[in-house]
Amino acid sequence: MPQQSPLEVPEGDPFGPHNLPYGVFSTAREDRRRIGVRIGGHVLDAGAAAAALGSPYAGLLGQPSLNPLLAAGRTAWRDVRRALTAWVTDPGHRPAVEPHLLPLDEVVLHLPYEVADYVDFYASEHHATNVGKIFRPDGDALTPNWKHLPIGYHGRSGTIVVSGTDVVRPSGQRKAPTDPVPVFGPSVKLDIEAEVGFVVGAPSELGRPVPLAGFEDHVFGLFLLNDWSARDIQAWEYVPLGPFLGKSFATSVSAWVTPLEALDAARTAPPARDVPLLPYLDDAGDDRPGGFDLRITVSVNGQEIARPPFASMYWTAAQQLAHMTVNGASLRTGDVFGSGTVSGPRTDQRGSLLELTWNGRDAIELSDGKRTFLEDGDTVTLTAWAPGPDGTRVGLGEVTGRITAAR
Amino acid sequence: MPQQSPLEVPEGDPFGPHNLPYGVFSTAREDRRRIGVRIGGHVLDAGAAAAALGSPYAGLLGQPSLNPLLAAGRTAWRDVRRALTAWVTDPGHRPAVEPHLLPLDEVVLHLPYEVADYVDFYASEHHATNVGKIFRPDGDALTPNWKHLPIGYHGRSGTIVVSGTDVVRPSGQRKAPTDPVPVFGPSVKLDIEAEVGFVVGAPSELGRPVPLAGFEDHVFGLFLLNDWSARDIQAWEYVPLGPFLGKSFATSVSAWVTPLEALDAARTAPPARDVPLLPYLDDAGDDRPGGFDLRITVSVNGQEIARPPFASMYWTAAQQLAHMTVNGASLRTGDVFGSGTVSGPRTDQRGSLLELTWNGRDAIELSDGKRTFLEDGDTVTLTAWAPGPDGTRVGLGEVTGRITAAR
Repeated sequence: MPQQSPLEVPEGDPFGPHNLPYGVFSTAREDRRRIGVRIGGHVLDAGAAAAALGSPYAGLLGQPSLNPLLAAGRTAWRDVRRALTAWVTDPGHRPAVEPHLLPLDEVVLHLPYEVADYVDFYASEHHATNVGKIFRPDGDALTPNWKHLPIGYHGRSGTIVVSGTDVVRPSGQRKAPTDPVPVFGPSVKLDIEAEVGFVVGAPSELGRPVPLAGFEDHVFGLFLLNDWSARDIQAWEYVPLGPFLGKSFATSVSAWVTPLEALDAARTAPPARDVPLLPYLDDAGDDRPGGFDLRITVSVNGQEIARPPFASMYWTAAQQLAHMTVNGASLRTGDVFGSGTVSGPRTDQRGSLLELTWNGRDAIELSDGKRTFLEDGDTVTLTAWAPGPDGTRVGLGEVTGRITAAR
Repeated sequence: MPQQSPLEVPEGDPFGPHNLPYGVFSTAREDRRRIGVRIGGHVLDAGAAAAALGSPYAGLLGQPSLNPLLAAGRTAWRDVRRALTAWVTDPGHRPAVEPHLLPLDEVVLHLPYEVADYVDFYASEHHATNVGKIFRPDGDALTPNWKHLPIGYHGRSGTIVVSGTDVVRPSGQRKAPTDPVPVFGPSVKLDIEAEVGFVVGAPSELGRPVPLAGFEDHVFGLFLLNDWSARDIQAWEYVPLGPFLGKSFATSVSAWVTPLEALDAARTAPPARDVPLLPYLDDAGDDRPGGFDLRITVSVNGQEIARPPFASMYWTAAQQLAHMTVNGASLRTGDVFGSGTVSGPRTDQRGSLLELTWNGRDAIELSDGKRTFLEDGDTVTLTAWAPGPDGTRVGLGEVTGRITAAR
C-alpha cells in the first residue's frame, strides 16, 4: 500500500489548502531561515519548492523573512497564493513538492517579518467599558472620544517576540492608592491581552492618508497577538501619556501569518455604531463588511478560561488603518497593529485577567489552584479559528508563552 | 601664497576638531550615501579618507548608514574618534585627507541612522508644569508620578525625518469643549517641541535592564529634535492612552550626531531632586553629572523666539535609559529617545508655542505678523551649542523644517 501523501490533509483540518499561512523556519540540521507555508501537520519549504518547480516566485519565496513578499503588494500576494494552492492540491505537482515538506514538529519557527512600527488599539467596547469601570470608577466608563475615533498608541516593536518565547516577569514601580510612595519590584499583576494583529505589506507615502478602501491593498494578513501587561506598573505610570513599561517588556505574536484572502468567508459586519462617524471612518457603505468572525480561545496551562469573539469589535482594522494614517503618517512594510483586547459581552468572553477576575477581586479556578493574575511558570495560549469556504474552518497559528521568574 | 587648507578651521568655530559630528551624505554627482564627518564648513568623506589612509576603520566608515558604527560599541567609538581627530589635525595626514573634503553646501544630508524604536520623554519640570496648568487647570500641574519616574511613551519611528524635510500640516479630528461633536480638518494648533534626542548604539538583551552606569556603553550621541505637535488633535485624542496622531505625522532630527565624547566638558549636574528616588534612578552618587549644558535657540523664519536651557532638565538621559529598560525591555541599535520639550524657568526659555503663547492666548510678534501657532510657510529652526574643552564651543547640527499646506 503506498504511503499517504502529507498533502492529503484530512477533511476538517483547519490548516488545509484553503488556509496556507506563511511563516519562517529553520531546522536543527540547517539554521538558515526560510519561508514556510503550513499545510496540515507539515511545513512546505516554499522557496525550495518554487525553485524545483521553476516558479517565477522562487526569488520572493527564497528569503529569510516575509518582508520582500509583504512589500511586493496585493497582486503578487494573490498570484503567489494561487501558485501555492496549485502546488499543494494538484497531484501532478506532488513529485516536485513532496520532497520539500517537513513535519511541523521538526522545524523551529521564527518571527516571520521584521517589525517596523507597532501600534496597539483599544477597539472592543466591552473591554474598554470594563477597564473604565475598574480604573476610573468615578467617571464615565468610556472617554468622550471613544466612539468617535479608534483610540491607539505606539508600542515597542523591538520586544515583539514569536510564539513560544518565554516572558520574563517585568519589574518596575507600582504604587497602590494607599501607599505613601511607590515601591519597586516584580509585577504582582501580570496579565494577558488576547488580540488580533495585522501586518502591513505595501508601504504608503508620508503625507498621504490611506482611505478605508485601501485596507486590502496595504494589509497582508493577520495573526494572534498577546499584549502582555503588568497592570500595577501600568496603573502608576499611564497618566498622562499612556502605557509604557507596563507593556513594553514583551508582545507575543503567532509564528503564522494568515493572508487576508484566506478569510474572505469570515468577513462580518461590525456592531451597529451609535454615533455618526466622520467620513474618513464611515464604513456604512463599504462593499465588504470590515469585521472578521474569528473565534478566539484563551487557555492557561492547557485550561480554557475565555472565548473572546473578534466579531464583536466596535472598530474594524480598516478603520484603524485609515485613522492611523489620516494625519499623513506613512506606512512601512512590517508595520504591525494590534486590535486591542478582544472581549465579548459575556463574562466568559473577556480577553484579559483584569476583566475576568475584576482586577483580582474574583479569582478564577484552575486545576492547579486559583488565579487572579499570572504566576511564574504559567503558560498562556491563544488559539482561534474562523469560518472558511464551504463549511471549512481556517485555523490561526497559536500564540503561546510561559512566564519565567523576574531576574 | 599657498591656499589655506580647509582643515585650518578658524578658532572659535563650533565645528572645529574638538567636535566632529557624524552624518550621512550624498552629492549631486554621486547619489551613493556615505558617512561624513563635519569639520568647519566642510564634510569629510570618512570612508574614502579611511581607505586612503589604510585605516582599519575603513570598513565601519565605508557604509551608507551609521548603524554599523553605532553597533560596534564604545571602544570602537573612542578609537574611531581618535583616528578622525588625528586625520584632521595632524598636518602630515593632509595630503591623504584633503582630497576627501567637500564644502558643506555641496552635499545632500540624509537621516544618518535607521531608527529602530522611538521613545519620547517629558522630562522638563517647567514644561510639564506649564502644560499641566494649560490642559488640566483644575488639577495639580504635575501628575503624582512625575517626580518618581521619567514619564515617556513610544512614538512613530517611521516618520522621523532629517532636518530640511518639509512637514505637511496634518489633518485630524478635534473638538473644542464647546463643540457638540468633533470636526475634521487641518490642524489649527500646529506647534513645535524643542528637544534633544539620543541614539542608542550598542544593543541590550531582552530581560536585562541597563543600569544608570551603562549609559555611555549604550548611547552613542545626541542631536536636536523637533517633536512637531498638533495640539488640537492631541487634546482630543490623548485620554486615556496618550498622544498618537497629534505627534505621529513627523519628528525632525539633526543631520549631525554629536558623539557623547565631544560633550565631556558640557556635563552638568541636574537640578536638585525634591523626592527620594528609587535606587535604579538615584544618580546622586554617580561619578559624572548626568546633565548636559546645551544652550538651545528656537527661531521661526529666522527670528529667535526662545532660548531653552537643556541644563534645566529634571530627568537625565541616563535616567531615561535606565527607566526605559528596567522592565527588561531590550535596546536595539538605532533606538532613539527624545528628552521631552526643553523649557527653562523663564518665559523666554519655553520650548513650545503652546507655552510661549499660553495655548494661543498671548500671540508673539514676528516681523511678518503675529503668531499663536504655526502658519503654512513658516520655517522653524533649532540650533544649539555647548561648552567644549578650553573655552571652545561645541555646535550641534541644526534641525529645521518648513510647514506646507495640508493636502
